[in-house]
Amino acid sequence: MPLELTEMSLPQPGGGEVTLKMEAAALNHRDVWISKGLYPNLQSGVVLGSDGVGTKDGRQYMINPNQNWGPHEEFAGRNYSILGMPHHGTFAQYLAVPRHRLVPKPAHLTVEEAAALPLAGLTAYRALFKKCYAKAGDSVLVSGIGGGVALFACQFALAIGAKVWATSSSPDKIERAMQLGASGGALYNESNWEVGLKEESRGFDIIIDGSGGEGFSKMIALARPGARIAIYGGTGGKITAISPQQIFWKQIQILGTTMGSDHDFEEMVAFVLQHKIKPGIDASFPLQDWQSAFTRMDRGQQFGKIVLKMP
Amino acid sequence: MPLELTEMSLPQPGGGEVTLKMEAAALNHRDVWISKGLYPNLQSGVVLGSDGVGTKDGRQYMINPNQNWGPHEEFAGRNYSILGMPHHGTFAQYLAVPRHRLVPKPAHLTVEEAAALPLAGLTAYRALFKKCYAKAGDSVLVSGIGGGVALFACQFALAIGAKVWATSSSPDKIERAMQLGASGGALYNESNWEVGLKEESRGFDIIIDGSGGEGFSKMIALARPGARIAIYGGTGGKITAISPQQIFWKQIQILGTTMGSDHDFEEMVAFVLQHKIKPGIDASFPLQDWQSAFTRMDRGQQFGKIVLKMP
Repeated sequence: MPLELTEMSLPQPGGGEVTLKMEAAALNHRDVWISKGLYPNLQSGVVLGSDGVGTKDGRQYMINPNQNWGPHEEFAGRNYSILGMPHHGTFAQYLAVPRHRLVPKPAHLTVEEAAALPLAGLTAYRALFKKCYAKAGDSVLVSGIGGGVALFACQFALAIGAKVWATSSSPDKIERAMQLGASGGALYNESNWEVGLKEESRGFDIIIDGSGGEGFSKMIALARPGARIAIYGGTGGKITAISPQQIFWKQIQILGTTMGSDHDFEEMVAFVLQHKIKPGIDASFPLQDWQSAFTRMDRGQQFGKIVLKMP
Repeated sequence: MPLELTEMSLPQPGGGEVTLKMEAAALNHRDVWISKGLYPNLQSGVVLGSDGVGTKDGRQYMINPNQNWGPHEEFAGRNYSILGMPHHGTFAQYLAVPRHRLVPKPAHLTVEEAAALPLAGLTAYRALFKKCYAKAGDSVLVSGIGGGVALFACQFALAIGAKVWATSSSPDKIERAMQLGASGGALYNESNWEVGLKEESRGFDIIIDGSGGEGFSKMIALARPGARIAIYGGTGGKITAISPQQIFWKQIQILGTTMGSDHDFEEMVAFVLQHKIKPGIDASFPLQDWQSAFTRMDRGQQFGKIVLKMP
């Protein structure tokens, strides 16, 4: 699914839709997967981008990237999709979206910060609060701390008074998480990285993981009795060699989660307003430099969200 | 940990304890694991047996096999143990137990049936209702239908109006589950057994699994969006090659569970009284024939509980 920057005709808003002049957008791993053909239900000729902020009649709006979540809070329905595939997304100068997808840009955020919030903020919020019931004093492990969801999970957990540890392959990213308030971290590319982390943290009430793979068995080893492990991604591939005995003796819950309902989205925005959360921006590129942005995300170099600024 | 039948002195009840004259007891896989040395924290010289019915002053009592569950409903505390290791259990003529562990034998049950209920009934109840929130109309898959927990899960789910399917390696056991009211089943030793089952059932809201192992990935494939999978045992060994993507797209919950709190035990007994559940007895042996009973359980030949009758 090769990407290109091209001229398109102005979108024609349908019933209930408005056309936004886009100001900023943000990348998600989803966009990179799509560009590699590694995503379900791909169609060609679609403008990518799930996150963005645009202007209409002089007012700035974030866009709720959920399309047709459906009637069940617990899971998305059959007709669910995410903005930016199969419907045109935010990596454009103009975008037609249903009016009910618009949320006023939080006043404490720049357009770049607001553009960075929706998809990753929603995923982190649902994982942490709707699946794992995080509360003050909980001990929380967030894996792969550079990623957007991971960083929001870290910030949200710190905001309610939980203690947070992070994993990364980069000492610099652990250091940056600690500057935000994390208690510590571990380098998952070192052997037996979980041993010291378990001693230091005494195990975790909550683990937020976007990787799976072979490392997932260490998450289970690090879980306290009654722990909740939310899994929202699978960059590490298939989960292998996990022990049923560890899962049932410790009564661990492994909770698949992705995105969230419109209700979750409302709660997440309210939470960000209440706690004055500032999304972490890794880098901002002009739309014309989209290739640099995609490359940076694909290499996993980022700490926080990668933003595109529209001309 | 070799077993033997031997004469012991009468137990001396401690403070708050009473001595029961035991009438019947029931085997659990736990007893077989212990006899093979495959259980944590083993001690020698201990009478096995977690399930039983005994008499005191002419009244018959079931015994709650939980010892010191602890303060958290979600998981057992550090000092938790199960009757029959490390403290003397029910495979004896006399047993001293704390009075608060006694529950009057349900009037609609024989002593053998009541002896068969506690451990497996508690495990099934917690898995089905406290972890998976089973309700009328749910589609429920129970794996390994001969086992005690599996059979109770099947009976309990049918009692509330759920639809139940079962897996087994034995066509006869599937047939017997259908005689109890199950809608159908599949033979897990046949290749691609899950394909027809998925078509027939349209997938499952709830899966109750005591095996794990390689077959667990098929449980995930059979799960509907939002499904809960309770895992209470690991006879199939380590879980391998499960897809994070299937877990998070379908927002599946994998819930480790074992036994249950004292509160769960009270609820389970009330449920059995309300629905007049009759535990399925596979076979009854005199205590002297304990070796036949252990062999039958070890070979997985049973359909329901294996009972020992005391002299």
